[in-house]
Amino acid sequence: MQTNNILSNLIDSQDETFKTLLESKNVKIERIVTDAHILPKDFWYDQEDDEWVIVLQGGAVVGFDNKESIRLGVGDYLHIKAHQKHRVEWTSEKEKTVWLAVHISV
Amino acid sequence: MQTNNILSNLIDSQDETFKTLLESKNVKIERIVTDAHILPKDFWYDQEDDEWVIVLQGGAVVGFDNKESIRLGVGDYLHIKAHQKHRVEWTSEKEKTVWLAVHISV
Repeated sequence: MQTNNILSNLIDSQDETFKTLLESKNVKIERIVTDAHILPKDFWYDQEDDEWVIVLQGGAVVGFDNKESIRLGVGDYLHIKAHQKHRVEWTSEKEKTVWLAVHISV
Repeated sequence: MQTNNILSNLIDSQDETFKTLLESKNVKIERIVTDAHILPKDFWYDQEDDEWVIVLQGGAVVGFDNKESIRLGVGDYLHIKAHQKHRVEWTSEKEKTVWLAVHISV
């Protein structure tokens, strides 16, 4: 039985880093690390799958294409439906922001 | 867009408390809160689904029926396959232990 820690080995990068923790037929569990990273203004995620996401370290603001912005701190979670366009508008500058995302086929 | 916090409203109870955060056809995401709770020695979880679990607060020891025991701290995660018998042998006495569990149909 192997255990790993989601808060260790946060790769030093200015970009978002994605690490698949578990993948099965209908579900992918992923760690996302962002480092004061602002996505290009014209880039929107538009995903085929539902995404359930929680912030485990740091903080972030997620924006939606209806102009709504949501501030997320540690422990805050969000259910983003498939094709609900969104982007990361801001993440903490004090530390890397660690997200856990569960992608669910619809 | 609604956000909630997984670390808030930890119900005061001596028992494990389970709260479904998201449920779909193949996946259930659940918060589990344990309060220095030791399960009866003869009780084993024997689940139909795969379970991916991470500790978000506190600490715990999970035991398996092959006599293996795994200590989990904050951020530690574990993939427990369907029908892999397991139980919670110990959780932190200093604070409530908060788990995030993703149950995945196999």
